[in-house]
Amino acid sequence: MAFLARSTLRLRATSRFPVAARTLTTSPHLRAAAKPYFADEPSAPKVVTAIPGPKNKAATAELDKVFDVRSLNMLTDYTKSIGNYCVISSYAQIASIPVASSPEMVTALINRPALGNFPSADWAHVLNTGILKVAPKGLDQVFTAMAGSDANETAYKAAFMYYRQQQRGGPQAEFTAEEIETTMNNHLSTTRSKAIHKMDIPAFDWPQAPFPSLKYPLEEHAQENAQEEQRCLQEVERLIKEFHNPVAAVVVEPIQSEGGDNHASPAFFQGLRDITKRNNVLFIVDEVQTGVGATGKFWAHDHWNLQTPPDIVTFSKKAQTAGYYYGNPALRPNKPYRQFNTWMGDPARALIFRGIIEEIERLKLVENTAATGDYLFAGLERLAKQYPEHLQNLRGKGQGTFIAWDTPKRDEFLAKAKGVGVNIGGSGMSAVRLRPMLIFQKHHADILLESVEKIIKQL
Amino acid sequence: MAFLARSTLRLRATSRFPVAARTLTTSPHLRAAAKPYFADEPSAPKVVTAIPGPKNKAATAELDKVFDVRSLNMLTDYTKSIGNYCVISSYAQIASIPVASSPEMVTALINRPALGNFPSADWAHVLNTGILKVAPKGLDQVFTAMAGSDANETAYKAAFMYYRQQQRGGPQAEFTAEEIETTMNNHLSTTRSKAIHKMDIPAFDWPQAPFPSLKYPLEEHAQENAQEEQRCLQEVERLIKEFHNPVAAVVVEPIQSEGGDNHASPAFFQGLRDITKRNNVLFIVDEVQTGVGATGKFWAHDHWNLQTPPDIVTFSKKAQTAGYYYGNPALRPNKPYRQFNTWMGDPARALIFRGIIEEIERLKLVENTAATGDYLFAGLERLAKQYPEHLQNLRGKGQGTFIAWDTPKRDEFLAKAKGVGVNIGGSGMSAVRLRPMLIFQKHHADILLESVEKIIKQL
Repeated sequence: MAFLARSTLRLRATSRFPVAARTLTTSPHLRAAAKPYFADEPSAPKVVTAIPGPKNKAATAELDKVFDVRSLNMLTDYTKSIGNYCVISSYAQIASIPVASSPEMVTALINRPALGNFPSADWAHVLNTGILKVAPKGLDQVFTAMAGSDANETAYKAAFMYYRQQQRGGPQAEFTAEEIETTMNNHLSTTRSKAIHKMDIPAFDWPQAPFPSLKYPLEEHAQENAQEEQRCLQEVERLIKEFHNPVAAVVVEPIQSEGGDNHASPAFFQGLRDITKRNNVLFIVDEVQTGVGATGKFWAHDHWNLQTPPDIVTFSKKAQTAGYYYGNPALRPNKPYRQFNTWMGDPARALIFRGIIEEIERLKLVENTAATGDYLFAGLERLAKQYPEHLQNLRGKGQGTFIAWDTPKRDEFLAKAKGVGVNIGGSGMSAVRLRPMLIFQKHHADILLESVEKIIKQL
Repeated sequence: MAFLARSTLRLRATSRFPVAARTLTTSPHLRAAAKPYFADEPSAPKVVTAIPGPKNKAATAELDKVFDVRSLNMLTDYTKSIGNYCVISSYAQIASIPVASSPEMVTALINRPALGNFPSADWAHVLNTGILKVAPKGLDQVFTAMAGSDANETAYKAAFMYYRQQQRGGPQAEFTAEEIETTMNNHLSTTRSKAIHKMDIPAFDWPQAPFPSLKYPLEEHAQENAQEEQRCLQEVERLIKEFHNPVAAVVVEPIQSEGGDNHASPAFFQGLRDITKRNNVLFIVDEVQTGVGATGKFWAHDHWNLQTPPDIVTFSKKAQTAGYYYGNPALRPNKPYRQFNTWMGDPARALIFRGIIEEIERLKLVENTAATGDYLFAGLERLAKQYPEHLQNLRGKGQGTFIAWDTPKRDEFLAKAKGVGVNIGGSGMSAVRLRPMLIFQKHHADILLESVEKIIKQL
């Protein structure tokens, strides 16, 4: 594998799922071995240079000129990345090739990066030779978006932040403690986990109900957890009945994700369903993070055995496209153009999702994720017993690979993970959360378990 | 051209621009002729069946089962559409082919439809064999979106509309006149042209300044138009200073598009720029509709000769991707993750925009649009003199093909246009607006002018 010599390899634990699986799994050798989904997948991560290496740093500096890189985790060479492994290096230049059927396009389609975190190594080049080539005079930077509406909305956000920044006395002025606290009462976005997402942005006056704060392992705290869930359900019903604005719907994530991977029982969600039915408000399940197999079922709410389905289920991320499902015909607005925008999605991305679905079925990837998740969880339980101070509140049992735990030195943990060639993220205040791809298998789980132990020993 | 026999052809006046131009213009014959950008483009529209024809109706009924078709204009066969002409027919079935480099994907990439209006003929098939194949139990319909945030936001909109509908007594209950009037005071979206877009959706308390209401032809009403613009500028400044909430930015379209193609002079926009500078608020130019060549300059605000550039320029539509440009480094938020979402755009669409830019430059399409627009406008001026009752307030002189006029029987005009094989849209209360592609040339303008006269004679 020539690329090992010039590159840094990492175990990739993101929501990306390559639809290229088909072409990469046709070797008879592989079919016999039946182990990796990708024949050429390396057997372990390999770290060659410091991370980021000099090439990656130079390319990041280049990108920084035109695109905000402060959320950037690392530049990734998606053309050389395989299966659960991604290649970190920068490459020089790409020839101009017919666009729509080019290898460049194929790579862009099957390796859709979270551009804020993991842009491809040539993202600056794509911007500089494309979007920025026609930048209006005097404007040399770009924030890329999905459609006209969020182009405008994100522009307004930028304006609000700039306005308040001037009032505070410039970019160096810190938010006050009061600002950080009160901004969480803003209600524009569904996410409420981080003040930095909300600061300065106007918001609607919407109520927030508490999500159960359970104790783990769940089975050891059954009674008090049930009480906590009951308390939250009562508060939801009280808010529906008493909030000063009328309530149209209850929105819930099957696993509260940005908030730190907080779980609740099927009984809790059944209770929510009952409350929404009883009060005649809609029950919206936000499966943006949990959907498409990650929890060991295709939809996380499949775990709940509801008597009646949710009214609306939203999806994105692993689907590589987005939208919401519904069944009640009355949820289609009573006149046209009430729910309308120019693009209303992207057929190219709809085709990719179809390809993803076909691969998930062909390779039984949901079943794989359920089995790998159980295996991984058992290994983490062993580590939690061995290193109780570093691996607390392990959660996600029976939820596929949607697993998380708390660790007091979380940010240090995540930083050291890169050093052993593993890319893991955090959420909430102290959670380490796993979001491997659906092609993550037991032999990858073994590598991850070894790596977690290595990291803990370095803390 | 075999497809003529089995299909309906129309002159296409949408914002779509095919990047396939390169492959389609390489014949030496064409280079010699130097007339159409597409060698195989038909010489005129041809209407074979009633519109919609039986196949199109059947396919629409199929799509209606899973997707709201009430904004649908017509199902389009993008695989057979060429240049300024699109083919209206339904086709049966597509074989399963490797996704990312398939002809199906190439078509989806270079022919990005406004899915609410002009979905491809196989859109129901793509949904049924893809997204809907994994629909959660009990939910059999889908609203497609771009990202998790607008999946959730559009779901919330659906919930609000459903909630209010129940209060009104069901889907048959009409909005009251008071509702239709007061909903326009809602301020969630930038668009304020149609009550139907805003009904039932909560909104921020933002001020709306008047856009100049000018008289056309502009050169015949110079003095009173200048007064009207002055009145609007004074109102903008008053609102900035006196509105009960502080103002962070002024947002303006170079040509107020959804509102009915309302124009203003460079002096007006220079005045807006001065006011925003003087009051230290940002000047945001919304070029979602006007950007990328349609007005005969790459950006419509290039017509204004501003002393200092706008602070932010937003774009989408013709760019096939979206975002905003800025230049002031202080507009990059002072901390990371303040302006962030998972996708932050789509690299596949960024590559398409790059291809579009290359083709625009290679074929000098902005210059073509400026010249074709002048030619078309002169022809429409002649028609306006001949049919003053049907072609009023002609506007967009010197603005490329971004041309519109008022006509008392607008909806009838648009309906009859289809009958002569021309697809035109409306905006505002009574405007017919033209939005041809950048490859629209003088010989297409001739066809359009003849068609407009034909339609008028039928009214």
